[in-house]
Amino acid sequence: MARIGIFDSGVGGLTVQRALLEALPGADTVYLGDTARVPYGTKSAATVTQYSLRNARVLEACGIDLLVVACNTASAVALPALRQALPVPVLGVVEPGARAAVRATSSGRIGVIGTAGTIGSGAYQAALKALRPDAVVVARACPLFVPLAEEGWTDPDDEVVRGVVRRYLAPLQAERIDTLVLGCTHYPILKGIIAEVMGTDVMLVDSAEETARTVTEILGSSNLLRPASEKGNRHYFVTDVPAGFIRVGNRFLGGKLGDVHQVSLEGY
Amino acid sequence: MARIGIFDSGVGGLTVQRALLEALPGADTVYLGDTARVPYGTKSAATVTQYSLRNARVLEACGIDLLVVACNTASAVALPALRQALPVPVLGVVEPGARAAVRATSSGRIGVIGTAGTIGSGAYQAALKALRPDAVVVARACPLFVPLAEEGWTDPDDEVVRGVVRRYLAPLQAERIDTLVLGCTHYPILKGIIAEVMGTDVMLVDSAEETARTVTEILGSSNLLRPASEKGNRHYFVTDVPAGFIRVGNRFLGGKLGDVHQVSLEGY
Repeated sequence: MARIGIFDSGVGGLTVQRALLEALPGADTVYLGDTARVPYGTKSAATVTQYSLRNARVLEACGIDLLVVACNTASAVALPALRQALPVPVLGVVEPGARAAVRATSSGRIGVIGTAGTIGSGAYQAALKALRPDAVVVARACPLFVPLAEEGWTDPDDEVVRGVVRRYLAPLQAERIDTLVLGCTHYPILKGIIAEVMGTDVMLVDSAEETARTVTEILGSSNLLRPASEKGNRHYFVTDVPAGFIRVGNRFLGGKLGDVHQVSLEGY
Repeated sequence: MARIGIFDSGVGGLTVQRALLEALPGADTVYLGDTARVPYGTKSAATVTQYSLRNARVLEACGIDLLVVACNTASAVALPALRQALPVPVLGVVEPGARAAVRATSSGRIGVIGTAGTIGSGAYQAALKALRPDAVVVARACPLFVPLAEEGWTDPDDEVVRGVVRRYLAPLQAERIDTLVLGCTHYPILKGIIAEVMGTDVMLVDSAEETARTVTEILGSSNLLRPASEKGNRHYFVTDVPAGFIRVGNRFLGGKLGDVHQVSLEGY
């Protein structure tokens, strides 16, 4: 059976895991959340690359056939190093997200929101320009969105939430974008309020869904998968104690997590 | 000359460094911000203790005479382990903060705000009760305050900031506290808006100032200090690249940081 490795700095990647399991319910997955070092979005490219390599080596030791980097920041800065270090295919979320955005836009005016690390790297901007050279890309880091999502302050009718979201998105509205990439795995949790603030004319692109589609393209034609009627094995690992991950994680996965085990990355 | 070691998960401890340098301008200080693993407030006691021991060993290798744990979360959970591991006195910020609060209160109704890790540990609650057994302690974690402070969203006239602060502080107001401990080194940056929301009847206690007073008591009488007219040496180390630390740090220190160097904690 094909085994898919997925890592993220913490719980955010569970939105990618969720999309993946919807598309490929029979897939075996091993998820690693680096909760002892979360978040990656505020850290340098060198540090994020070092952490990403360590995560990948742990998953490699689990015998994975494909690695999904379910963290936008790690996808933005660490893919070349990961591809060089690993013997299996490595898929990030930036390229699929950019592809979906280019398909969705008609005006070519595309917004991207993400962590400081993701936006600062310029990875989405470059990926979008490579696919559509005349695109106008408006990028904005939204550092308060992750803590809002983790606090569960996501109600579109909540005046405080609305105030924060409006402030970050105002410059994107002023640029009259028609497509907005949610370039952080936490942001789908805020989709309701983001959609309301941006209005119905703006298409929201969730990298998770497009990434799941790409994994399906790679694995779906192979006979390495169980029939969709059989549920695959799901393993969850974290680097800090599991309690906080489980509490927030059920909301992100949209269902109940199985057992979550703590692993040490020392020596990897 | 006496050399004081200070560590924090990141920039927040610079508010303690600032109070320390105001009280003891002649002191030699070595500051370590563990920016590659920041924040500590969302992580488990075991992980925070492991990180704290590593920070302390680096500072010990710098030949410090006294260690100030300028992080509330590390002070709340790692002091016993640090005191056992280090041959020099170790001072946290929780005990000084609690002492100042008990001195300030008249009704005995004391509020404490901090990270999830600090509040969850119950360290402030225990320290306050030990000093004043009949105290009524109302504690609340405020996860959005750190990102607000780091974004520089601190203007008391800002409706969004006011909305977030009001939501977190409402239960403390309802309990009619007369003293509020700012139990996180980031929170003094939000002092203006917190004071406005709580009103003039509530005394705000900043652990940093009381910690500086305690260090002065320990070292001030010794002849290990330069005369106040001579400025001590100040060294700054971080575990991630220094750029972000410098940008935010100048605001926290209330002045210009000197050179900031990156160190690796591997092997400590």
